[in-house]
Amino acid sequence: MRLDLDIHPLTRETFTPFGDVITTSGAETISINEGTTQRFHNLAKVDVTDEGGATLINIFRGQPRERPIRIRMMERHPLGSQAFFPLEPHPYLIVTAKTKGPPTPADLCAFRATGTQGINYAKGIWHHPLLVIEPNHEFMVIDRGGPSNNLEEHWFSEAEGGAQLTF
Amino acid sequence: MRLDLDIHPLTRETFTPFGDVITTSGAETISINEGTTQRFHNLAKVDVTDEGGATLINIFRGQPRERPIRIRMMERHPLGSQAFFPLEPHPYLIVTAKTKGPPTPADLCAFRATGTQGINYAKGIWHHPLLVIEPNHEFMVIDRGGPSNNLEEHWFSEAEGGAQLTF
Repeated sequence: MRLDLDIHPLTRETFTPFGDVITTSGAETISINEGTTQRFHNLAKVDVTDEGGATLINIFRGQPRERPIRIRMMERHPLGSQAFFPLEPHPYLIVTAKTKGPPTPADLCAFRATGTQGINYAKGIWHHPLLVIEPNHEFMVIDRGGPSNNLEEHWFSEAEGGAQLTF
Repeated sequence: MRLDLDIHPLTRETFTPFGDVITTSGAETISINEGTTQRFHNLAKVDVTDEGGATLINIFRGQPRERPIRIRMMERHPLGSQAFFPLEPHPYLIVTAKTKGPPTPADLCAFRATGTQGINYAKGIWHHPLLVIEPNHEFMVIDRGGPSNNLEEHWFSEAEGGAQLTF
């Protein structure tokens, strides 16, 4: 059995338990550079300094998975936040878990982000690796580099069966 | 008198004195997420922790200036690096100065970035505020928040006359 996950539109409110939605919509704005630039200020909580960590800037290039997308595992970064912002305005998918312990399929929440919304997973939040819909979809990724293990994976058992996204 | 600046194509080599060019081209690549994602790893040195600073994620929305663009001042952030990556693939312009002291027009260097190149100004590098060519050009900006003054401006005198970009 695979649980078919409902896919919800991504909003600041529904994503609050998992981190930040990175968007100009509704953000604090400061006019700078003699009025030629709007600064949408401090859109996500970067939390990467535990155990000697520092901020990394990376680009991820994702490829679509076979549909329906099987959710067979989840991961988390116990030492740092991880932010994604799309570099082309295509929608993409997000799966998180509303539990601190190892998740079960019943704990999963799925979202569809628009191509102008980024997200920032708070430190330690269970999430599925990047799920793109369009080939070669690139993202700016702001996360943690440094000593100690910052990756935990949890694979669902055969009995649990996992989940899937149909769209 | 205004000095007419030559505008050079942006490359890793020519930008090295000023910071990093953020691009997948020639970057270290790691295959992750069961082979569905390429991670272009650690593309810029984020240097924001002096005097209790931390990393901010922001979006800047820039408007073009009148042409020819007059370069009447330069600024720098003595406590932190500042990275820009375009969210739409339009070219944009960059002006830096090859001096640590307050720059003169003769110290200025101008570059044209492609729409898939970001830049990261190293801490303390003199640069002109954002110079876009297309209206409403948005950038992801990774810089420093925290105590102490992190902005110095230097305005050219009437005698110096400043510089301009004609394109």
